[in-house]
Amino acid sequence: MNRIILGVDPGSRATGYGLIAATGESLLHLESGFIALPAQLSHSQRLARIYQRLESLISRYNPEALAVEAVFLAHNVQSALKLGQVRGVVLLAAGQADIPVFEYSPLTLKKAIVGYGQATKTQVLLMVENLLGLTLNNHNTADALALSLCHHFHSRWPQRSVSPAAI
Amino acid sequence: MNRIILGVDPGSRATGYGLIAATGESLLHLESGFIALPAQLSHSQRLARIYQRLESLISRYNPEALAVEAVFLAHNVQSALKLGQVRGVVLLAAGQADIPVFEYSPLTLKKAIVGYGQATKTQVLLMVENLLGLTLNNHNTADALALSLCHHFHSRWPQRSVSPAAI
Repeated sequence: MNRIILGVDPGSRATGYGLIAATGESLLHLESGFIALPAQLSHSQRLARIYQRLESLISRYNPEALAVEAVFLAHNVQSALKLGQVRGVVLLAAGQADIPVFEYSPLTLKKAIVGYGQATKTQVLLMVENLLGLTLNNHNTADALALSLCHHFHSRWPQRSVSPAAI
Repeated sequence: MNRIILGVDPGSRATGYGLIAATGESLLHLESGFIALPAQLSHSQRLARIYQRLESLISRYNPEALAVEAVFLAHNVQSALKLGQVRGVVLLAAGQADIPVFEYSPLTLKKAIVGYGQATKTQVLLMVENLLGLTLNNHNTADALALSLCHHFHSRWPQRSVSPAAI
């Protein structure tokens, strides 16, 4: 069975996305990249750009799930608000297409990809490159692909914890 | 000239909206209410419900501006993230329809409506009822209408501060 999973790494500067197709033990990279947000756009125009890009990826690939990082920390209330705004648009894109959303903590993500909860961003990027046989030069893109891989590894075995995004 | 303004008060439990039409000195209430979010919906379904309602109000009334409260404070990072997610969807609805967004601080809002920056929520509600000649029983709805009134008062006189939503 071919499972298509979309991972998204929302950020107020750039939002990474990564689509993989998993068939049994084989993993295929479909498409990945990041949505850059030009400074001259207004905030609502930036959010519209992210939404339109995700909407078009979802309609092209029809993924069965969207994986995002669970957020527990932010530097401060203002950065939490900004991150929340981008995150809201990502969750909306899934909601409008009726795709379930799964959240993974940074610890779960690093354990799933590198096998070690304290792994660095570079270690995650290198493992994603290795697993999918490609070269990446952007951490947002690598994190987005890592999230889609993490969802695949976790949902292959139903006894592992997979929980729909909580409110 | 008939100016139609949409005010929105985003909240993670309920999101208020209020549409007014202003012609010279006369103010007309067009439609207002709040989008309740049933607990059984997933987070992305809740966001989709808010988005769909705003999208339908915008396409019906074609407002020239969307007014929201500027947020500087939240109880904590988690509540800022939740509020940010709803706010992102509100800003997106404006961005998708190419409607400019204007932000007003709670102080500016209270001064514009009640004439006193430390006014209570109940005082704001009573003044909105008075200005528009209606009875309200919900603070989200009253705050949304107050925001649309505040934008009208501020943008009538170009020398007053009106700033597009900052990033």
